[in-house]
Amino acid sequence: MARTRVDSAVMAEVVSQLQARFSNRCSTSVSVREQHGNITTWLPNEAPDVVVFPQDEAEVQEIVKIAAANKVPVIAFGTGSSLEGHVNAPYGGISIDLSNMKKIIAVHPEDLDCVVEPGVTRKELNDYLKSYGLFFPIDPGADASLGGMVATRASGTNAVRYGTMKDNVLALDAVMANGEMMRTARRAKKTSAGYDLTRLLVGSEGTLGIATKITLRLSGLPEAISGGVCPFPSVKAAADAVIMTIQSGIPVARIEIMDELQVKAVNTYSKLTLPEQPLLFLEFHGSDTGVAEQAERFGEIAADLGGGPFNWASRPEERSKLWAARHDVYWSCKALRPGAEALATDVCVPISALADCIDETKEDIAKTGLLAPIVGHVGDGNFHVSVMVDRHSPAEVEVVEGFLKRLVERAHKFDGTCTGEHGVGQGKKKYLKAELGEEAVMAMRAIKQALDPDNIMNPGKIFDV
Amino acid sequence: MARTRVDSAVMAEVVSQLQARFSNRCSTSVSVREQHGNITTWLPNEAPDVVVFPQDEAEVQEIVKIAAANKVPVIAFGTGSSLEGHVNAPYGGISIDLSNMKKIIAVHPEDLDCVVEPGVTRKELNDYLKSYGLFFPIDPGADASLGGMVATRASGTNAVRYGTMKDNVLALDAVMANGEMMRTARRAKKTSAGYDLTRLLVGSEGTLGIATKITLRLSGLPEAISGGVCPFPSVKAAADAVIMTIQSGIPVARIEIMDELQVKAVNTYSKLTLPEQPLLFLEFHGSDTGVAEQAERFGEIAADLGGGPFNWASRPEERSKLWAARHDVYWSCKALRPGAEALATDVCVPISALADCIDETKEDIAKTGLLAPIVGHVGDGNFHVSVMVDRHSPAEVEVVEGFLKRLVERAHKFDGTCTGEHGVGQGKKKYLKAELGEEAVMAMRAIKQALDPDNIMNPGKIFDV
Repeated sequence: MARTRVDSAVMAEVVSQLQARFSNRCSTSVSVREQHGNITTWLPNEAPDVVVFPQDEAEVQEIVKIAAANKVPVIAFGTGSSLEGHVNAPYGGISIDLSNMKKIIAVHPEDLDCVVEPGVTRKELNDYLKSYGLFFPIDPGADASLGGMVATRASGTNAVRYGTMKDNVLALDAVMANGEMMRTARRAKKTSAGYDLTRLLVGSEGTLGIATKITLRLSGLPEAISGGVCPFPSVKAAADAVIMTIQSGIPVARIEIMDELQVKAVNTYSKLTLPEQPLLFLEFHGSDTGVAEQAERFGEIAADLGGGPFNWASRPEERSKLWAARHDVYWSCKALRPGAEALATDVCVPISALADCIDETKEDIAKTGLLAPIVGHVGDGNFHVSVMVDRHSPAEVEVVEGFLKRLVERAHKFDGTCTGEHGVGQGKKKYLKAELGEEAVMAMRAIKQALDPDNIMNPGKIFDV
Repeated sequence: MARTRVDSAVMAEVVSQLQARFSNRCSTSVSVREQHGNITTWLPNEAPDVVVFPQDEAEVQEIVKIAAANKVPVIAFGTGSSLEGHVNAPYGGISIDLSNMKKIIAVHPEDLDCVVEPGVTRKELNDYLKSYGLFFPIDPGADASLGGMVATRASGTNAVRYGTMKDNVLALDAVMANGEMMRTARRAKKTSAGYDLTRLLVGSEGTLGIATKITLRLSGLPEAISGGVCPFPSVKAAADAVIMTIQSGIPVARIEIMDELQVKAVNTYSKLTLPEQPLLFLEFHGSDTGVAEQAERFGEIAADLGGGPFNWASRPEERSKLWAARHDVYWSCKALRPGAEALATDVCVPISALADCIDETKEDIAKTGLLAPIVGHVGDGNFHVSVMVDRHSPAEVEVVEGFLKRLVERAHKFDGTCTGEHGVGQGKKKYLKAELGEEAVMAMRAIKQALDPDNIMNPGKIFDV
């Protein structure tokens, strides 16, 4: 169903039902509503009509049933750290804030899995898991909620070794558009029993269902970690080193690129003295001898390609300092141009095309005069451009929009995707048909209509119905 | 649409259209048709009305368009090695035999991926990849076609390290029910662009579309391989060793269990002298020092649990002999009871429940008096029972059916699945609702109806529409 805003009398009636049921866990204040619209990019904030804070699965079902009866949109909300307007409410409706649903329901150390509620954040989960000697490896940077990470198919720095959310979600319990619970799979590590409903929901951005129990695959904390920074004469040399590393089967856990502008920003912001040239940040996980061997082999590859010196260390404090700088990239960019906003976008290409894609992007940035450092999960061919923008300047916004369009077209030219990990949301809907063709978008739309005929689940995201 | 057999006049017209177009690549001979019905288990053979052998994607489209215009079933056929009646034609129709589509369209060594047609088998692909120093790790035992492996979400011995087909398919081009081509993804290693149509098709058993181009993720051939056999006093001790091995982060490439009856069968058939007690077969991939370290650490774990001695070797000829015996399990079982058929079934449970599930299954086997060796991909909690059956004895068939039902109920009791890798086909349709609940089966059905409203794509498999 093509979506419109709900009639205001109907919406008022829904709000009063929700208030009667959830009292002070239901808010219509402007500030709360605006905090639950998009707040992390330049996409305009579109606030929901009402925000409800359920405490358990049954309450999520209740809310969705009220919404379904009245054909009112529901938008699941985790921490609000998504980047493409995923939590906006273009047609109004109910924001379901899951931040009170923080139970870690079960940890099964022998099976290397756990079951959590969607409001648990990745740092909360990892703090909890430490005593088991386990961790959940997906690290998108932000301390996102696991529900949100399911929704956007998040990945991040560890994905080169541990995969993305698609690889680390074993099963989901989700509230579907009719308010009923659906379980996508059992807790076995693999299954061939029917369609892969787990993977269908992972990355569906809340448009098909709202996950209320998430069964995650865990990893053992590595016995040893080593890592370091390696400078290269060019992006091309760095990318070639990454290709060689992966081809050689070195099971690198993290391998991140920064261009010279990003290094400069990081040096200033994090008070470091890294060489201001293309750098790889690396981390190796394994046994003591294993990580030493991995680091040495990488050092040889780097030297062969004119890179280095590669100084690696397994002292936690040195590593923490480096990775803290990596995690502060967003803030370091903002500090490059105080007052401007940092628009974070991402594309992902086959790794063989990465150097060319980054080089062409840097030329484009130079031509436009934008300030836009580059940082990337280079082992996956995924990179981010943080475009500094004054969104009150229409001329500048136009330049940025042109740049973003060309960035996606370039990714497509190299057989890549408009988003490796941020998701489509509202911001990248316009690129989906060019990326996958009409038949794929029609299939997505048909699935959406089959599972959510009234289009109440996060409408207006990924594609238009 | 609930499916019935096509009117015979319509079918005759369709056959004559196909004969006119494909001449000697279109057959209605009884023997060819029966070869294209189920031939690998005790499920009755249900032959298609006609078998067509297309040579390229465009021809597959042509066939599906003729089928769509006449609402005639189409069943994709690879090598016929599936085990649950996937290629049967309960409503008649067209078997599309893809064995002529054997092009390896592209190998991208820098990206560790390749693009192949569906008729390429895994051994053919691996022979071709050798010169690149690459391999495709999924090994279901049979020399299945890659199209068939996509369809059943195949896995096998290497899955504990390399994942299953869901983890190793990057993108698919598929002919959909309307005869149009759909591309599920670009060639980037990861994406967050919309619903995961790749994973929706992987494991859909030809009920949603027919893959005509498959983009696969590859791995580098390991620098070194070591492996061996380790005896244990009980299944429980062996399973505990597996749990410890995986928890310790030892990246074991293969870890397979055989019960004492299976070992006996293998000794007889493959002329080996393995100790007739529960055994683990292991293989390690890595660098020279890496595989040595892995094998030593495993040996210590085994010894702690009363297992051993663990004799490991990196001599290829010794390893080949062992793994040849592992691959000949099916034939070794048949030799246990000449004349009987070996019915291969599989379930998969959380690894912590594996020992209990196998032990209870062995007790059940003992009670029924069946001859049924057990072999399993124990690192994934997945095991196979090869039930020897004389399918001309109704009494014996009844005993076997009771056993299979209890096996699945037992897997469910331990939060496992009715099939870890064989798929649902016809044989396990009856278990799907008990496994996932009504809502999940309804969702699958809704997706099927949305993408194939006339129910022409391999009807009668996974669930009834």
